[in-house]
Amino acid sequence: MSLVVQKFGGSSVADIERIENVARKVIASREAGHDVVVVVSAMKGETDRLNELAFGAAQSSTPRPREHDLLLSTGETVTIALLTMVLERMGAPARCLTGAQVRILTDSAFSKARIQDIDAELIREDLGAGRIVVVAGFQGVDENGSITTLGRGGSDTTAVALAAALEADECQIYTDVDGVYTTDPRVVPTARRLETVTFEEMLELASLGSKVLQIRAVEFAGKYQVPLRVLSSFQDGPGTLITMEGQKNMQQGSMEEPLIAGIAFNRDEAKLTMIGVPDTPGIATQILGPVADANIEVDMIVQNISNEGLTDFTFTVNKTEYDRALDILRKQAEVLGAREVFGDNSIGKLSLVGVGMRSHAGVASRMFKALAAEGINIQMISTSEIKISVVTDEESLEVGTRALHKAFGLDDRSGNTVSVEGQSV
Amino acid sequence: MSLVVQKFGGSSVADIERIENVARKVIASREAGHDVVVVVSAMKGETDRLNELAFGAAQSSTPRPREHDLLLSTGETVTIALLTMVLERMGAPARCLTGAQVRILTDSAFSKARIQDIDAELIREDLGAGRIVVVAGFQGVDENGSITTLGRGGSDTTAVALAAALEADECQIYTDVDGVYTTDPRVVPTARRLETVTFEEMLELASLGSKVLQIRAVEFAGKYQVPLRVLSSFQDGPGTLITMEGQKNMQQGSMEEPLIAGIAFNRDEAKLTMIGVPDTPGIATQILGPVADANIEVDMIVQNISNEGLTDFTFTVNKTEYDRALDILRKQAEVLGAREVFGDNSIGKLSLVGVGMRSHAGVASRMFKALAAEGINIQMISTSEIKISVVTDEESLEVGTRALHKAFGLDDRSGNTVSVEGQSV
Repeated sequence: MSLVVQKFGGSSVADIERIENVARKVIASREAGHDVVVVVSAMKGETDRLNELAFGAAQSSTPRPREHDLLLSTGETVTIALLTMVLERMGAPARCLTGAQVRILTDSAFSKARIQDIDAELIREDLGAGRIVVVAGFQGVDENGSITTLGRGGSDTTAVALAAALEADECQIYTDVDGVYTTDPRVVPTARRLETVTFEEMLELASLGSKVLQIRAVEFAGKYQVPLRVLSSFQDGPGTLITMEGQKNMQQGSMEEPLIAGIAFNRDEAKLTMIGVPDTPGIATQILGPVADANIEVDMIVQNISNEGLTDFTFTVNKTEYDRALDILRKQAEVLGAREVFGDNSIGKLSLVGVGMRSHAGVASRMFKALAAEGINIQMISTSEIKISVVTDEESLEVGTRALHKAFGLDDRSGNTVSVEGQSV
Repeated sequence: MSLVVQKFGGSSVADIERIENVARKVIASREAGHDVVVVVSAMKGETDRLNELAFGAAQSSTPRPREHDLLLSTGETVTIALLTMVLERMGAPARCLTGAQVRILTDSAFSKARIQDIDAELIREDLGAGRIVVVAGFQGVDENGSITTLGRGGSDTTAVALAAALEADECQIYTDVDGVYTTDPRVVPTARRLETVTFEEMLELASLGSKVLQIRAVEFAGKYQVPLRVLSSFQDGPGTLITMEGQKNMQQGSMEEPLIAGIAFNRDEAKLTMIGVPDTPGIATQILGPVADANIEVDMIVQNISNEGLTDFTFTVNKTEYDRALDILRKQAEVLGAREVFGDNSIGKLSLVGVGMRSHAGVASRMFKALAAEGINIQMISTSEIKISVVTDEESLEVGTRALHKAFGLDDRSGNTVSVEGQSV
């Protein structure tokens, strides 16, 4: 007997028929001998409907946060009631709880509240009585009794937090895809589903554009060492287990351990460069300060050694912020006496991700060699402990991904190609 | 400075535009110097939408009560969030609270929970801080933290209960009609809006088919002596104040006090008679027992003195129950050895209601005389302290109502005729 927390998102509970499908999966786990806690999101479309009402009432796209959170929380409350009715109809004893009823205590940062504490007592009682417990995702309650929401992907966070509080054996996140892939199967038909991936690799894969899981939930799971599994709501299969690094090594054996977990790519960034800036202390802050003040998020930052007291400074931002960032940078170039400002919004970013990198030399050179063999020019390079990212022109992105996938031995050896709708890496 | 509780039903908050209309009324009261607590129902159509989901999930028209209540409660929660957003947008500080947040403590009789206690503290704090407080009607929370609903008309009950707990100066129920009328203005164009009506009169008027207020809320208001006012959501006007008898006398002066508050009529009943029943003790129970066991509600009951050891027993039921009641009665007539069973489902019931009746003789004879003058035959008579009801054939109902309205001096002396949509007496 083990305890699993299962989370199903909005498209998995979009209508009664799909909720019945979820109920069957939950009951199957129960019949396999597990205690089950289910976390669900609002039915697909419901949050949009509620937002439309809120925007109309507030005549603003930023309604009052306390009331907005209360309003949105009704979406998940509807789902837990319906799923519980379906479970009971199918003969499975079940009970539902809102975030406030569980007492998922959060701070009062409406719309992006952080969980502070969870009282697992009520859930344990219900599990002890042989019931499936259905909990509303995305919502909590602050110490004043006001309903809060956890922000985007909050239901994943709820599931992981409950798994941590209940010391669950596994937290299973059901999604549109059947696991985490070495790269996007739509671009590389020989992409493989990973049996396991480490938290850190998953974080890098997620931050590079994978939408399989919310970064925050992955961080949370890593912090509390909750084993996390990504599976498909719509087909059977073991999915991908996200583990501590040690567990991964043990399970796979070090001989077969792949050097690289996967290859992520991203077409959503644009590059900006300030040429010929006086290389004085604090120059990075003077360049990036005004960008940060405008609430523009910066991803890669590259500065090379200076030449005759001048240096070149490059960074990337989301494409949607390109024009604003360029304006700011041009003004700042005048202030700083820089020679010139360049920009390019048709770039692509390619990243190799893998904890194996730490202990193996030569990964970067193998990467650069594979790209060179395809005639791809590298515009920027940035590295971290477990990833190497390069910026290329946008057209080279797919060719580059396929080349790296092959060069690092990630291709499915069975020769099978996969086709997964909705995989977005 | 006084404190008013204002309640707006589903059609008053059917869309953002109507919610804005409600907000303007609330703000006008605030600006007139009152502290205001607003109670709202779910937006019109929302409860039906949620029920449809529930019936689909449960594959039953009686979903599990705990989950059904939780589901339905989201309807009012949506409304309080939206109204609060609108109030704030219009510049009025406001705050909303669910039933659980106020802590409207109920028993655990899901779908028809009874209020046990209200913690008025949070509301008092908000009022003290100059805020309008918006409370979700229809919902409460039991001692286990489960969300409950109060059943049909529950929002009226919430409003009255809050008014009692807060010792409000008045509880204002906004409806489709602009007050309580002496009778249905669609039938009697000279019908007058009553300035005041007593709780008991209102109860009789309501139980006779008036749908202006839920009986339960009126009983509740009477018990806690909460002055209740019925007004229109859609037009201005003082409405009708529902008072203690004493207050009414003081306000109107005894000279002008009308003998009769109003005339109610009802086409929804059918009459059943058992002829020639042996007149033995317990016979009423033997006749009505099986009817009650079948969950059929009985309204008027008339039994006359016996003749040669046999008696005739007549009662009325709702027309929709006529066939079932007739079947039961025929079977029971055989058991009891009664001579015959008659039924008539084209009857009408006419009732004179007024606390004045208690202290004035001759009301009944004046009533019978007025009906006789129109050639209307009286089939049954039943009286209570403050009402006299007669059953006639259905066709005589409207003529009889007009005749009584005139005979008891209820016609509008100004000669104005009113026309009120939605008045249903």
